[in-house]
Amino acid sequence: MSTHPISRFPVPDVSDVPEDIRDIIVEVQEKTGFVPNVFLALARRPEEFRAFFGYHNALMEKEGGLTKGEREMVVVATSAINQCIYCVVAHGAILRIREKNPLIADQVAANYRKADITPRQKAMLAFAEKVTTRAYEINDEDYDRLRKHGFDDEDIWDIGAIAALFGLSNRMANVANIRPNDEFYLMGRVRQ
Amino acid sequence: MSTHPISRFPVPDVSDVPEDIRDIIVEVQEKTGFVPNVFLALARRPEEFRAFFGYHNALMEKEGGLTKGEREMVVVATSAINQCIYCVVAHGAILRIREKNPLIADQVAANYRKADITPRQKAMLAFAEKVTTRAYEINDEDYDRLRKHGFDDEDIWDIGAIAALFGLSNRMANVANIRPNDEFYLMGRVRQ
Amino acid sequence: MSTHPISRFPVPDVSDVPEDIRDIIVEVQEKTGFVPNVFLALARRPEEFRAFFGYHNALMEKEGGLTKGEREMVVVATSAINQCIYCVVAHGAILRIREKNPLIADQVAANYRKADITPRQKAMLAFAEKVTTRAYEINDEDYDRLRKHGFDDEDIWDIGAIAALFGLSNRMANVANIRPNDEFYLMGRVRQ
Amino acid sequence: MSTHPISRFPVPDVSDVPEDIRDIIVEVQEKTGFVPNVFLALARRPEEFRAFFGYHNALMEKEGGLTKGEREMVVVATSAINQCIYCVVAHGAILRIREKNPLIADQVAANYRKADITPRQKAMLAFAEKVTTRAYEINDEDYDRLRKHGFDDEDIWDIGAIAALFGLSNRMANVANIRPNDEFYLMGRVRQ
Amino acid sequence: MSTHPISRFPVPDVSDVPEDIRDIIVEVQEKTGFVPNVFLALARRPEEFRAFFGYHNALMEKEGGLTKGEREMVVVATSAINQCIYCVVAHGAILRIREKNPLIADQVAANYRKADITPRQKAMLAFAEKVTTRAYEINDEDYDRLRKHGFDDEDIWDIGAIAALFGLSNRMANVANIRPNDEFYLMGRVRQ
Amino acid sequence: MSTHPISRFPVPDVSDVPEDIRDIIVEVQEKTGFVPNVFLALARRPEEFRAFFGYHNALMEKEGGLTKGEREMVVVATSAINQCIYCVVAHGAILRIREKNPLIADQVAANYRKADITPRQKAMLAFAEKVTTRAYEINDEDYDRLRKHGFDDEDIWDIGAIAALFGLSNRMANVANIRPNDEFYLMGRVRQ
Repeated sequence: MSTHPISRFPVPDVSDVPEDIRDIIVEVQEKTGFVPNVFLALARRPEEFRAFFGYHNALMEKEGGLTKGEREMVVVATSAINQCIYCVVAHGAILRIREKNPLIADQVAANYRKADITPRQKAMLAFAEKVTTRAYEINDEDYDRLRKHGFDDEDIWDIGAIAALFGLSNRMANVANIRPNDEFYLMGRVRQ
Repeated sequence: MSTHPISRFPVPDVSDVPEDIRDIIVEVQEKTGFVPNVFLALARRPEEFRAFFGYHNALMEKEGGLTKGEREMVVVATSAINQCIYCVVAHGAILRIREKNPLIADQVAANYRKADITPRQKAMLAFAEKVTTRAYEINDEDYDRLRKHGFDDEDIWDIGAIAALFGLSNRMANVANIRPNDEFYLMGRVRQ
Repeated sequence: MSTHPISRFPVPDVSDVPEDIRDIIVEVQEKTGFVPNVFLALARRPEEFRAFFGYHNALMEKEGGLTKGEREMVVVATSAINQCIYCVVAHGAILRIREKNPLIADQVAANYRKADITPRQKAMLAFAEKVTTRAYEINDEDYDRLRKHGFDDEDIWDIGAIAALFGLSNRMANVANIRPNDEFYLMGRVRQ
Repeated sequence: MSTHPISRFPVPDVSDVPEDIRDIIVEVQEKTGFVPNVFLALARRPEEFRAFFGYHNALMEKEGGLTKGEREMVVVATSAINQCIYCVVAHGAILRIREKNPLIADQVAANYRKADITPRQKAMLAFAEKVTTRAYEINDEDYDRLRKHGFDDEDIWDIGAIAALFGLSNRMANVANIRPNDEFYLMGRVRQ
Repeated sequence: MSTHPISRFPVPDVSDVPEDIRDIIVEVQEKTGFVPNVFLALARRPEEFRAFFGYHNALMEKEGGLTKGEREMVVVATSAINQCIYCVVAHGAILRIREKNPLIADQVAANYRKADITPRQKAMLAFAEKVTTRAYEINDEDYDRLRKHGFDDEDIWDIGAIAALFGLSNRMANVANIRPNDEFYLMGRVRQ
Repeated sequence: MSTHPISRFPVPDVSDVPEDIRDIIVEVQEKTGFVPNVFLALARRPEEFRAFFGYHNALMEKEGGLTKGEREMVVVATSAINQCIYCVVAHGAILRIREKNPLIADQVAANYRKADITPRQKAMLAFAEKVTTRAYEINDEDYDRLRKHGFDDEDIWDIGAIAALFGLSNRMANVANIRPNDEFYLMGRVRQ
C-alpha cells in the first residue's frame, strides 16, 4: 500500500463528510473494491464535489452515439496532453475494462494517432485534442469532418464537453497533486 | 437587438426547461435585467446546466481570501488566454462592476502583466495563467510565491479551480459558439 | 484622470518638441479632443516619431481595396495576439467608430474567428495572424486564398504591412509600457 | 497474438539477415523470451541496425553515476515527450523491471515532475526534457544544477546522449510506425 | 548574376522613382557597389520607403551605448528567429564587416547563445529575442538585467526598437519574398 | 586560428585514441585538410564515435533516390531548426560543395521554404521539418505527398533517418558546445 499522500491538501475522514457524499463514496467502494482518491481529495469541498461528479455522470454514463469506452478514450487522450497522472492512470484502467483491451490505454496515452482504434475514433480524438489545445479555432469544418464519420451534433457536444470537463479535472489534479490509487495501474491488463 | 444566433445548438424555450432551471433563469433575469445567453445555451442539457452553475456558484460567490472582483480577474485573464469571446465580454462586465473600474477588464484581457492591479493580483493571475497553459509544471515554488503575497492554501485552490472551471466554460463556448448578449459590452463602463 | 505614468521613459513637454511634431500633436488634439499618449511617448525621439507616423499614415489613411475600418480590424487582431494594451484599446476605439459598431472591437480582440465580420474579413485577419506569428511560412496558397476573396496584390501588401507595422508598435508599447488614454475605453461604445 | 503489422516497412525473415545481426536477434530472444519488434524493424538496414544498437549498448549498459534504472527513466521521459508508443511501452517495461517498481513507468510517462522519484532524478529528467525540446538553450547553469545533485560531467553527457539517441529512436519509430510487442505491456507490473 | 526575381511584386525602374528616393539609391550604389534589393523592392511605395529608411537610419547609424556592430547583431539574431533570408544574409554581411569578424554572423544566426560574443552582448540578444517572441512579458527584471551589463535606458530602447523594426522588415521580406543580392553572401568573409 | 575550446569536454590527443578511430581521423584530415572538430569531440568515447559515424556513413554516403547534396540539405534544414552552430556551419560547407552553389546553405538555414531549390526538395525538407518537430503526427498523407514528388519508401526512410540522426548530433553538439572549425565558414563560397 502506498504511503505517499493522496493530495497536497488535507483529506477529510469519510465519517465527517456530508451524508450524500458519504453515500457516493461508500457506493463506489462497494462497486470498485476501493475508494478512488479523487473522491477523497474533492470531498473536502462538498459543493465542488457534487458539481464535479454531477457533470461527470451526466457525460460519462449517458446513452448516445459514443460508447462508454469511446468516452474513456477521450478522457485518456485529453489527460495525456494535459500530463495528468491521476486521470491517465485511473481512466486508463477504466478504458481497458470498457474496451476489454489491455493494450489500448497505453497506446492512446502515448500517441492516439497510432493506436489500434478506428479512423472514426481517431477523428473523435483529433477533435478532443483541438478542444484541449486550441478550442478557439473550432469551426464548421471540424463539425463536417466529424459528421462524415457518423457523429451527430449531440455526439460532438459530448466529445467537446468530456474534453473540457477533464481539462478541468486534469488541472485540479495537477494543482493539488492528486495521486492515483495503486490499484488502477494493473486493472484490466490481463486479457480475460 | 442582435439577430445572430445565441449558439450553434438549438436553444430551448424557457417554458420547456425543468422548473429548477427555469427558476434560476427567471431569477437572473430579474437581477440583471436580461438573461445571459450562457443560461439559455446550457439549459438544453439540464444535468450539465446544474453541474456547471453549481460549480460556478461554489467558487465565485464564496467568502475567502479573494474578493469577488479578484475572482472575476481570474476569469477574464483565463478567458483571454483561451480566446473565449463570451467569457471575456460577459465577465469583463462583471469585473468592471465588482471593481467599480471601467478600465480594468480591457487591461486584464489584453495583458494582465501591465494592468492597473497590485503585485499580489499579478501573482494571482500568473498562477492562473500557469494553471491554464501548463498546470503539469505547478510545484512547491508556485505555492511559496503565492503564500508570500498573503494567499493561503484555500485561496490557491480557489485560483486554480476558477481557472480550471473557466477553462471548461471557455472550451464549451468555443465549441458551441455561444454569443455574449449585447448588453454586456457597455455594462460598468461609465464611472458612477 | 489617470495618475499612472504614460510610459516608462520620460515624456517631453510639448513646448520642447520640434515644430513639425508639435504641429502634428496640436492637430490630433484638436481633432480628437485629447492627445493620444503614443504621440507623447514617441516625441522624445523625433526621427523615430516622424518615421512611425509617416509609415502609419501611408498605410492607414490611403485609398484601396481595404476600408479604413478593415485596416483597423487588422490592427486590433494583430495587437491582441501581441498582447499590447495600448493598441487594443486605442485602435479598438477607432475600429468601433470607423465601423459604427460598438461590439466589434471586443470581438476581434478576443477571437476574430468568431466575430461578427464577413468571411472575406476573416480571411484577411487569418493572413494578418500568419504574418504576425509565422510570416516565414507565407506562400502562394495564402495569396490565392486572399485573391479568391477579392483582394488584389496591393491589398495583400497592405494587410501584411499593417500587421508588420503594428507588430513594431506593439513591441515598442510593451517595451516602454505605453499606456492608453482613459478616453479611448468608452469611445464608440454607444450606438448613435 | 497481434495481427497488426510490426512496421510500415517490410520486415526481413530472420534467416535472411547478416549473421552478426541474426546472432543478436537470437540472443535477445533467448534472454527475453521474444524478439522485440525494433530488432526486426531495423534489421532490413544492417548498417543502421549495427550503429543503433552499438550506440544503445554504449549508453545503456555501461557503468557510471546513473543506475540502469535511471537510464531507462531518461528513455521513458524522452519518449513520452516525443509521443513514441514503441519506446514508452517497451522501455516502460524495462524501467519497471530495473526499478522493481510496477508504478513508475506510467508515472514518468504521464508527468515525471510528479512521479515517485527523488529530487535528483527529477533534475536528471528536467535536463533530459531540455535536451529534447530546446537543447540550444543548454548552458552553464544547467551543468551547475546537475552537479549540485551529484552528477559529474560524464553523467551529464550520458543523460544528454541518452535523450538524444532516443530522440532519434522515437522519430524512426514514428516515421516507420514501429509497433511494440504485446508482451511489453504487462511486463514488470506485478510486484514480486 | 541571379535570374531569380527580386520580389513577388513588380520593381520600378530607378528612373521612374521620386527624386529623393533615386538619390538615396544612387548613393547606396556608389557606396556599396550595388543596390541592395530591399531599396528596389520598397521603392514602389515611396512613402513607406521613406518611413522605413528614416526609421532604419535613426536607429542604426546613431551614436550611443551600442556599437554599430552590436546593432547589427540585434538585426541578425532577430531576423534568424523570424526566418528572414534577406535580413540574415544582408545584415550578416554588414555585421561581419562592422565587427571585422568573418565568423560572427553565421554563429549569431544559428544560435546567439553559443556565439563568440561577450556576456553583455548575449544579454542584449536575449532581450532582443524576448522583444521578438514575447514582448508582452517584458518587465522591470529585464531592465535590471540589462542595466547590470552597463546598458542605460536609451540603449534598452534602442535594442527593443531595432528588434521591433526588423520584425517589421522580416515580415515584409517574407510577405513579398524579397531576395538578397548575391553579393552579400561573400562580403566580409575573408579576414583582411 | 581560433583559441576557443573545441568542446566543454576534454578532447583526447589523437595519439591516445584507439587505432581504428585514429585511422578515421587521419583519413579525414588527409581528405579535408583539417580534422573536423566533431571527430575530436566524440573520440573520447570510442563506442559512441563508432556508432555515430557508422550511422552517418550508412545514411550520407549511400546511393539512392536522394543525391548527396539533397542529403546535406536535410542536415542543414534540421540543424537550423535545432539551432546547432556546428552542423549548420560544417554541413553548410559540405552542402555548398556538393551542390556547387555558394548561396544555398545560407538560404536553407534561414528559411528553406524560400530557398532556390525545387518543389520536390521543398517537400523533402517539409518532411524533415515534421520529423524534427512533430514526428508523432506523421501519417499516410505525408507518405503520399512525398511519393507524388517521386520519392519511394526507401527515400522516405532516408529523409526521416537523416533528420533523426542529425537531431541526435545537434543535441550532442549543443550539450557539449562543440565548435565548428574556422575553415568551414568559407568553404565552397567562391563559385569556381
